[in-house]
Amino acid sequence: MQQVRLSLAEGKKLAFNCLISNGCDEANAEATAENMVVAERDGCSSHGLFRLPSYVISLRNCKIDGHATPEMERLAPSIYRIDGKGGMAPLVHQTTRKMIIECARDQGVAIAAFVNIFHMAALWPDVEPLAEEGLAALAMTTSRSFVAPAYGSKPLFGTNPMAFAWPRTGRLPMVFDQAISVMARGEVQMAARDGHTLPEGVGLDGSGHPTNDPRIVLDGVLLPFGGYKGSSIALMIDLLAGGLIGQPFSPEISAKSNNDGGPEPGGQLLIALDPERFGNSEGWRDHCEGFFSEMTSHEGVRLPGVRRQSNRARIIVEGFKIPENLHIEILELTRDPGASDG
Amino acid sequence: MQQVRLSLAEGKKLAFNCLISNGCDEANAEATAENMVVAERDGCSSHGLFRLPSYVISLRNCKIDGHATPEMERLAPSIYRIDGKGGMAPLVHQTTRKMIIECARDQGVAIAAFVNIFHMAALWPDVEPLAEEGLAALAMTTSRSFVAPAYGSKPLFGTNPMAFAWPRTGRLPMVFDQAISVMARGEVQMAARDGHTLPEGVGLDGSGHPTNDPRIVLDGVLLPFGGYKGSSIALMIDLLAGGLIGQPFSPEISAKSNNDGGPEPGGQLLIALDPERFGNSEGWRDHCEGFFSEMTSHEGVRLPGVRRQSNRARIIVEGFKIPENLHIEILELTRDPGASDG
Repeated sequence: MQQVRLSLAEGKKLAFNCLISNGCDEANAEATAENMVVAERDGCSSHGLFRLPSYVISLRNCKIDGHATPEMERLAPSIYRIDGKGGMAPLVHQTTRKMIIECARDQGVAIAAFVNIFHMAALWPDVEPLAEEGLAALAMTTSRSFVAPAYGSKPLFGTNPMAFAWPRTGRLPMVFDQAISVMARGEVQMAARDGHTLPEGVGLDGSGHPTNDPRIVLDGVLLPFGGYKGSSIALMIDLLAGGLIGQPFSPEISAKSNNDGGPEPGGQLLIALDPERFGNSEGWRDHCEGFFSEMTSHEGVRLPGVRRQSNRARIIVEGFKIPENLHIEILELTRDPGASDG
Repeated sequence: MQQVRLSLAEGKKLAFNCLISNGCDEANAEATAENMVVAERDGCSSHGLFRLPSYVISLRNCKIDGHATPEMERLAPSIYRIDGKGGMAPLVHQTTRKMIIECARDQGVAIAAFVNIFHMAALWPDVEPLAEEGLAALAMTTSRSFVAPAYGSKPLFGTNPMAFAWPRTGRLPMVFDQAISVMARGEVQMAARDGHTLPEGVGLDGSGHPTNDPRIVLDGVLLPFGGYKGSSIALMIDLLAGGLIGQPFSPEISAKSNNDGGPEPGGQLLIALDPERFGNSEGWRDHCEGFFSEMTSHEGVRLPGVRRQSNRARIIVEGFKIPENLHIEILELTRDPGASDG
């Protein structure tokens, strides 16, 4: 496959222009382009420009409001409800981050319930900036039903990713971001696109039988990691990012979907904690660094997220590559906003 | 193996008397006996009276303070730090539960950082009572190092259980409680005791090779569920129940252990959320009940914790059984507090 190399600035401009061409205002286009290019920067192409055509579809059919302005309400000293008004998730995070950080520092804990947002973005960019400010942060969201509950063979849960970030001293934060499925759906989509087969245990076909074919799994069902224990965590995420905050559960997202391949509206929960405020303000950083050192002293063991960090160091310098046909598609979607509609 | 059948009241009295004989005051004995008998009530013998001799050892050698009185401090409107003063975990929960429930209702969220407690108890009894009061509750704790991080072969993480409870309408709460290891260490201990073999993938021997022998796994290492994704969650739990609140990480617990087989001192984090306070006070119960109904309509799928609930219905009526030699051991430990010391 022919590839096109782009700098991060070029990638962001490409995405920004495409989003502007397709009905976004500058704030929405900037935030979403930034999220995609952050994914590319960290070597996660499944959440990079690969997502752009899907966003464009849902902007063109007016499912996403590219001019949405988030509204926020403080429900309690530590709780915000942030209404994305049908816009894309990255803008609500960009708009409210400072407020959430200040709340967490002031109250020790800040919880943000994001509602009416379209989240198809990488999740770790929602938590890493909080850890850069010295906070621990946990985020979770739902999606359309793609994952079978334990002992089941039909989709129920979304891929329900969870991301967690912890501040480091003099280093990038420790960050993990993982779907509840054995393999992220974006990775399965890319395997299907590239003609690869899947490892054992990733998914089932529509009749509930194991298969290694990513195209068949995309029409069938993904499996949760760790069997019934992963399934329990998927349930918890549907309850916290759906039931708790009055947002759709994953099967409701599916039921309401127009199946355009774009993102779907739903909720997200973010919890930020300030380690300075738990009665342990002295020494917690050194204490945790000691634990990280012990962990990495184990043979073969790395901290979560280090591959993203090494990708980042390289890609900031070298740029990143996307398939040439994706590059052409984005340019076409940018030049002629109506071209692929009819 | 000969078994002895006990009613729940008999089991609680047996445990209470044994704890009193071994240096507990009534409050500590009552709370810990209650926790053990709740485990038996729900059919979880690995956290029932099976634990009592281990508690006794650590009471006799004065590692646990059987007269500890918890102290609490409100660090922020939503944050309590509760110092167990070297006593057993069940008492800190029993003592502070009402306060935490009131805080969660008042503030929407309550976080309790429990420190200096000995936690070797079932974890779901820490969250289920909160869900009975209409709250969502998440609890996590550390332990000695028993679990290898992903790609490693030596113990680092504790079994780091996580329990989550969600309120139901007209039913017992949905509750899961799961160790980060594929199999709970208590279950491996019972398999060793009973001469059973383990399924594949539960653990490694001391050289990092897979084995099905529970005795060898107990001297080797347990594996996290779901590979690197479970390992990430284990890390998060060590950070939140250890690093965040100034309590030992799992390897520090191991390093300081007197290896008496009893519980070890450490921390626990509890987060309670009130669904009434997230801008969704109308309809959340029906909304969630609809999701639970959909989940259980999937063939072969059950909600987490239903086995405990059906055990409970039966055991409340029928009582529970313990091995005769455990019963004799407990009676001996009760009659003669010094008998097994020398």
